[in-house]
Amino acid sequence: MTDVAHMKWWGWGVEGVAFHHEDKPAFAPFVKKAVGLDLSQPAGSPPSFDDLTVPASTAPAELIEALAGVVGANRVVTDDLDRVVHTYGKSIRDLMRIRAGLLPRVPDAVVYPADEAQVQGIVALAAERGVVVIPFGGGTNISGSLEPEVEETRPVLSVDMGALRRVLSIDEDSGLARIEAGAQGPDLEAQLNAKGWTLGHFPDSFTHSTLGGWVATRSSGMQSDKYGDIADIARGMRLVRPDGIAEIRAMPSASTGPSVREMIIGSEGRLGVITEVTVQVHRRPKRREVQAYFFPTFSAGLKAMQAIAESDASPSITRVSDARETGFSFATRKESKGVSGKVQAGLFEVLKRRGWDLDQLALSFIGYEGSPSHVRYQKRIVGSIVRKHGGLGVGSGPGALYDQKKFDTPYIRDFLLDRGAAADVSETAGPWSKLQGIYDTVIDAANGAYASLGRSGWIMAHLSHSYHSGACLYFTFAFVTGDDPIAEYDVVKSAIQQAFIDAGGTLSHHHAVGREHAPWMEQDISSEGVAIMRGMFSAVDPGNIFNPGKILGDREPARVDS
Amino acid sequence: MTDVAHMKWWGWGVEGVAFHHEDKPAFAPFVKKAVGLDLSQPAGSPPSFDDLTVPASTAPAELIEALAGVVGANRVVTDDLDRVVHTYGKSIRDLMRIRAGLLPRVPDAVVYPADEAQVQGIVALAAERGVVVIPFGGGTNISGSLEPEVEETRPVLSVDMGALRRVLSIDEDSGLARIEAGAQGPDLEAQLNAKGWTLGHFPDSFTHSTLGGWVATRSSGMQSDKYGDIADIARGMRLVRPDGIAEIRAMPSASTGPSVREMIIGSEGRLGVITEVTVQVHRRPKRREVQAYFFPTFSAGLKAMQAIAESDASPSITRVSDARETGFSFATRKESKGVSGKVQAGLFEVLKRRGWDLDQLALSFIGYEGSPSHVRYQKRIVGSIVRKHGGLGVGSGPGALYDQKKFDTPYIRDFLLDRGAAADVSETAGPWSKLQGIYDTVIDAANGAYASLGRSGWIMAHLSHSYHSGACLYFTFAFVTGDDPIAEYDVVKSAIQQAFIDAGGTLSHHHAVGREHAPWMEQDISSEGVAIMRGMFSAVDPGNIFNPGKILGDREPARVDS
Repeated sequence: MTDVAHMKWWGWGVEGVAFHHEDKPAFAPFVKKAVGLDLSQPAGSPPSFDDLTVPASTAPAELIEALAGVVGANRVVTDDLDRVVHTYGKSIRDLMRIRAGLLPRVPDAVVYPADEAQVQGIVALAAERGVVVIPFGGGTNISGSLEPEVEETRPVLSVDMGALRRVLSIDEDSGLARIEAGAQGPDLEAQLNAKGWTLGHFPDSFTHSTLGGWVATRSSGMQSDKYGDIADIARGMRLVRPDGIAEIRAMPSASTGPSVREMIIGSEGRLGVITEVTVQVHRRPKRREVQAYFFPTFSAGLKAMQAIAESDASPSITRVSDARETGFSFATRKESKGVSGKVQAGLFEVLKRRGWDLDQLALSFIGYEGSPSHVRYQKRIVGSIVRKHGGLGVGSGPGALYDQKKFDTPYIRDFLLDRGAAADVSETAGPWSKLQGIYDTVIDAANGAYASLGRSGWIMAHLSHSYHSGACLYFTFAFVTGDDPIAEYDVVKSAIQQAFIDAGGTLSHHHAVGREHAPWMEQDISSEGVAIMRGMFSAVDPGNIFNPGKILGDREPARVDS
Repeated sequence: MTDVAHMKWWGWGVEGVAFHHEDKPAFAPFVKKAVGLDLSQPAGSPPSFDDLTVPASTAPAELIEALAGVVGANRVVTDDLDRVVHTYGKSIRDLMRIRAGLLPRVPDAVVYPADEAQVQGIVALAAERGVVVIPFGGGTNISGSLEPEVEETRPVLSVDMGALRRVLSIDEDSGLARIEAGAQGPDLEAQLNAKGWTLGHFPDSFTHSTLGGWVATRSSGMQSDKYGDIADIARGMRLVRPDGIAEIRAMPSASTGPSVREMIIGSEGRLGVITEVTVQVHRRPKRREVQAYFFPTFSAGLKAMQAIAESDASPSITRVSDARETGFSFATRKESKGVSGKVQAGLFEVLKRRGWDLDQLALSFIGYEGSPSHVRYQKRIVGSIVRKHGGLGVGSGPGALYDQKKFDTPYIRDFLLDRGAAADVSETAGPWSKLQGIYDTVIDAANGAYASLGRSGWIMAHLSHSYHSGACLYFTFAFVTGDDPIAEYDVVKSAIQQAFIDAGGTLSHHHAVGREHAPWMEQDISSEGVAIMRGMFSAVDPGNIFNPGKILGDREPARVDS
């Protein structure tokens, strides 16, 4: 074994940490009302590993020996737990499958390379022998990018990059850092912070996801308005391929034909194994604030975010929740102690007197970074836009709270699964002109899906990640499942995905394609667009050994070299 | 014939417009000193079309008829002038070849589709018959992206997109405009300006280049610091391919696998014909200023630009010239009239007393756009950085002049060719930490090349297009040619390109690859990077009909379908 730590094999996060609602008095009533779930009833518990039937590894002994020759015997693992950990990511479908003991195909071995040379050795060996290679970062993917194809007959290796986690160097003049691909968020951020720098990339999965995974899935962080998506941040990279290393040097911009950099970004392991990324880093800002604002409606909030994107201000975060998500936020707060609860009650009274319908209240967070004067300058511009759209600043308290608990949400899914409910997220992006329409279409589609299942379901959303021409809409939905949870989930999830496309959005803003979103690729980038991508994959990986079937769902017949 | 206008067949720009130096008293002495050329000597004149030997069209009559069936007989042209106009772009190599009557392979026909359906008809016909298709925008390319392969035995069509030039629609909420690919800069900007919008994309070639050409070559404009490179600006596009249209919908950002959008951008016609692009547009700024600054040295200017890129300011233009280019700027000014000349002389006296070496003087332009208060805010931040680096603001006069004459430079090349001298430009980008090294290496390489040729040559440069992690360095070089101008040019140009790579820069920041820069592709993006791109081209264009040989210099044996 190695010192690479993993999340719970059956759920999110580290052992011993879970979501609790006892200290959040409004949560149980909220859940009861939203999806009809009674939290006072006894909960189920996570599955027991002993109950699983794990298919035996089909890797020939000589393959394991050859791999051991490359990485050392202790870095080739075939035990059941490790193989199960590397079978899925952490989508709700993954969690439901693992709880149901559905393990039709698990990797035959997990390999933990210690450096890039070992990755090269593994890849060369795999190409020579027709062995499937699935790169594995933190295992947080929620789009089905990690699972072996069920019908795969060749040996399947999960290549866990967790041992490659160093910040190798920082070019202080250029704000560029070379970082190994297996570095997880907190790990690399701590190494950078120690020298006064930050990556500024904070996706919801930050605590467990890796740099290589971010690049392979086109991740985007909560502060992307300032720092950019990972596609902007990742300037250079090294990709291990059977015949050598594709090295994209870190350039601020280049005119060198179709962008190979932008082919590797989002490639989900289909072109090779990313071992190193050169990323933009920034000096830690002197000042950082997250201010909260209320809008009378979500629509007013959307319009305000649009105006901010068009303004001279450049905040680090733009976020506004719809009324349901605003209600959810209030319901997950810890018991209000003394004065703050009274202040809020007083504020709500004032709003009511002003004619606000508090059931339509939309909570917004705007982040500011830079010198103190730059923060002031931007807050002034944003404040004026907020007022113009009927909104109201409510200080930095809620923002600080958001900042603290922003990475805790994934734990709620396991909590709900223990109680027979499924919760998931699905996100899109679209032009400003289409966002209200996408929102309305998705809400209708989800409610239609719930109705068709005869269930009471919940869906809420926020806007985040603003750009010049549009933004991301991020939906969270939940319902109490029945006899066939996965099939029921599929009905709701598919309805939402189709609504994205129908209303002019993309199939995903930053969650990648995997197997989960592959059915919408042709509708999103057109069948000729898919043909270009498919041609590229087939030419660049003729043996189809690199994470086959992902993105395009285009598994070809297995070819095994003798 | 059609109403599509073209530049001079032998040089830059429109007939009747040329560079003159009679009103610029410092120009002749400058040129004498820089490259030893005596402008008082009689000049040669541009070539006469009658002196050319133009190879006959080899297009079979039935092909011409079939094309006429698609676009109408008046839109298929085989006359010599039109075919010569479509043989080359406007690089110095192109200008030298056309003056020397070097026309080994010209297109066999020029087709002027009137709409996308006609483009689709042409492409389908070409694919069916194994006919080569070279898309043609404004013909301004300077990297050899437009010429047919000399050894090409199949019929070659130049598909002139000049008739597709409308702004089709503007999404005012999203700041997105759908524009036909053949629209030239002034044309589309006028259509946008009329409705209060601007594209903000102003490359040196702006007056004659097209939107489709910008996308196909990864163009970048002078105000890219604010508006982005064309790769940022072009959010969606339509690419006509043999089996249909690849349609990339305009999304602010998306997580849909490797970016097909970023494969089409920079593809130089190798994937099909771009017919329409959806671009970000911006409301015309309330205020726009270009301020000039002096720095005591180019190095100090570089450091200041780096500090500005790291600051909270976000100017639209950052530009600083080295001492030689600063001298050139002064030499191309019209006669100073009265007070301004005296003001400058006085200023120079002050600088000398401060200990500045005026031979090292570096002129800088910084552009500001936005509300008046935003312009003020940014000028304050930049002013403080400039002072910290020993620089000095010199007002908006020089900037206004720069703004007026910024598109005139290409005419100088024809002026010099008439007098036996070659002038060209070559540009790169690199991380901030490497820019001084790239600059020094390039200057040394060019001077070494001049020495090896036994000639007195000139090279000057500026920094422009700043990014978080680096910037573009743009070099202009000139020398009096001897018996074999093209071979001599190659010595100098190759030395500069190799210096880019050796010192850590890219082969081009925004001039594309074509045939001119193809030899440096493997050194730039690595041989495995090239292998990925080559695989993509071969899979996506198996008949090798789309502008073969460009970018990778990888012409495969011609395949002609029966």
